[in-house]
Amino acid sequence: MSSALQNDLYLRALMREPVERTPVWVMRQAGRYLPEYLAVRKQAGDFMTLCSTPELACEVTLQPIDRFNLDAAILFSDILTIPDAMGLGLHFVAGEGPKFSKPIKSRSDVDKLPNLDAGTDLRYVMDAVSLIRKELNGRVPLIGFSGSPWTLATYMVEGSGTKDFSKVKGMLYGDTEAMHALLNKNAIAVTNYLNAQVAAGAQALMIFDTWGGVLSPDSYREFSLHYMQQIVDGLTREADGRRVPVVLFTKNGGRWLSDMADTGCDGLGVDWTIDLADAKQAVKGRVALQGNLDPSVLYGSPERIRNEVKKVLDSYGTDPGHVFNLGHGIHQFVNPDNLGVMVEAVREYSTR
Amino acid sequence: MSSALQNDLYLRALMREPVERTPVWVMRQAGRYLPEYLAVRKQAGDFMTLCSTPELACEVTLQPIDRFNLDAAILFSDILTIPDAMGLGLHFVAGEGPKFSKPIKSRSDVDKLPNLDAGTDLRYVMDAVSLIRKELNGRVPLIGFSGSPWTLATYMVEGSGTKDFSKVKGMLYGDTEAMHALLNKNAIAVTNYLNAQVAAGAQALMIFDTWGGVLSPDSYREFSLHYMQQIVDGLTREADGRRVPVVLFTKNGGRWLSDMADTGCDGLGVDWTIDLADAKQAVKGRVALQGNLDPSVLYGSPERIRNEVKKVLDSYGTDPGHVFNLGHGIHQFVNPDNLGVMVEAVREYSTR
Repeated sequence: MSSALQNDLYLRALMREPVERTPVWVMRQAGRYLPEYLAVRKQAGDFMTLCSTPELACEVTLQPIDRFNLDAAILFSDILTIPDAMGLGLHFVAGEGPKFSKPIKSRSDVDKLPNLDAGTDLRYVMDAVSLIRKELNGRVPLIGFSGSPWTLATYMVEGSGTKDFSKVKGMLYGDTEAMHALLNKNAIAVTNYLNAQVAAGAQALMIFDTWGGVLSPDSYREFSLHYMQQIVDGLTREADGRRVPVVLFTKNGGRWLSDMADTGCDGLGVDWTIDLADAKQAVKGRVALQGNLDPSVLYGSPERIRNEVKKVLDSYGTDPGHVFNLGHGIHQFVNPDNLGVMVEAVREYSTR
Repeated sequence: MSSALQNDLYLRALMREPVERTPVWVMRQAGRYLPEYLAVRKQAGDFMTLCSTPELACEVTLQPIDRFNLDAAILFSDILTIPDAMGLGLHFVAGEGPKFSKPIKSRSDVDKLPNLDAGTDLRYVMDAVSLIRKELNGRVPLIGFSGSPWTLATYMVEGSGTKDFSKVKGMLYGDTEAMHALLNKNAIAVTNYLNAQVAAGAQALMIFDTWGGVLSPDSYREFSLHYMQQIVDGLTREADGRRVPVVLFTKNGGRWLSDMADTGCDGLGVDWTIDLADAKQAVKGRVALQGNLDPSVLYGSPERIRNEVKKVLDSYGTDPGHVFNLGHGIHQFVNPDNLGVMVEAVREYSTR
């Protein structure tokens, strides 16, 4: 498993070490904008089969690395594997996103949730991690990931995506103890899940807190950040004699970057609604930053894309500790060539 | 029309004058959470008939004033009346929200948009304003409103609600000149529309920039704030010998409050993702603040609601210039009694 890493720019940047150029990868880089992804997805039949078949998950994980020479691979999986393994009945309805047939409605539903042993209950994920690591053969590091306890809870309680979060916030304000019990169970499961991914070969970890930004500042600290802190405290931080960096990403969490940096994580994902210069000011050199081009820029002309890439790089400046990325996942209808333009621009403008 | 105003707490608070207690109103206060609203909506048959029938719009506007003794009424209307009057074919699909049958796809679509004369093209809105003003008979002030140019553009280009704003941002980054042409047309129309509302009797104005928060800081200034500035500069600011205050509200715009205050508006709406103490710090006494309880708090117990109301009031403190409100519209499934608890708590805790 431990073939020497040929390109460790990503890991070094997260450790805020000097690098020859800014590493770049892209959230949702293995996704529907790629025709080769769509072909494998069609072959799999449905999304969860794709996620749960290690050979197919491995194949799509490597596609964007092959096409764009990106500096990190990220495990192809779904953020809802944990509640699915807990028995909530994950399924996908075309055009509507994920659904749970047995959402959490009460404290007694929370108490009935099983404690997961991710190494066995989510064996297919660990098999995918091991296989991807083997197939990468040291080209670039492999990132493992999970949804945050709060983000998982939003889907578990709403039973689907939502616009107003009325059910999950109804529990938060109406039965606060049940919400804390759920978040604690999720935090334990996520810690176990991420540690199993490290044991299987993940070389860095990312926690996606997609919905932390819908909370008030007090509620964010109490219901989202607190449980990410619990996870960070419980993670394996070294593997193969090397630091396993942890990156937290709260979408629309730009105001809370300083609090997030206090968790002891190594890096923070940043969306495009805050300038990297301001984000850097907020974290004062404690962590690396990852981001933060608006994914919609990839609908622009090559000239416009290059110009916007340059603005992001200039906003961060030349200090160590920057990983280039979009501020959220790449959109389905983007022309892959435009991502190529972005990646080349990052290389060209950031080479020291 | 100019019957003496019996309760002007709202107008005085927006002028940052001392008040006996903090005035309170609620975004979407005439809405589906009220059984009496649902009865009138059923009678109207469909939503646009309700909006475009002055007697019915007046009736639902007054319902929450009668029930809760709120300190301001807000015109019942839709934010998409302007693009509808421009000929884009607004209609509502059950469970899916607003749709346009002729969305804007190109610069030539923009150039074909008519220049509105709101006083005639949106006569039904002005008739509703006049009638509401007459029926209010000086009880509380009447707020007129519009969507912001950017927010209107998102619906006009997407043709519906959206999660990723790919079409409208595709135009922003892919055909920037067309986007500016559209925003300029919208700004002219909104200015004309709001001034017509003041002429018809509106005593304060609010501009809802629901989607400004999905932009990067640079893009927000260029594509949303710039056009709100243009509107503020063109508004009638006095009627019946009294200031007509203007309030700007960018959802998820907490980081940009200082820039927004620079427009010369009188107040800013603030959502619940920023503490009012921080918001106050950002605007340094230049404008009043309106907000900012998380609407989901109204799912909590009476005790929890009172506690959260107190936190919001304490966060602002006792300086003049606070209008209590939710941080966004009240949810459909809230028990109206819980809004009553909130209103009473504001009165009780804020009385000097």
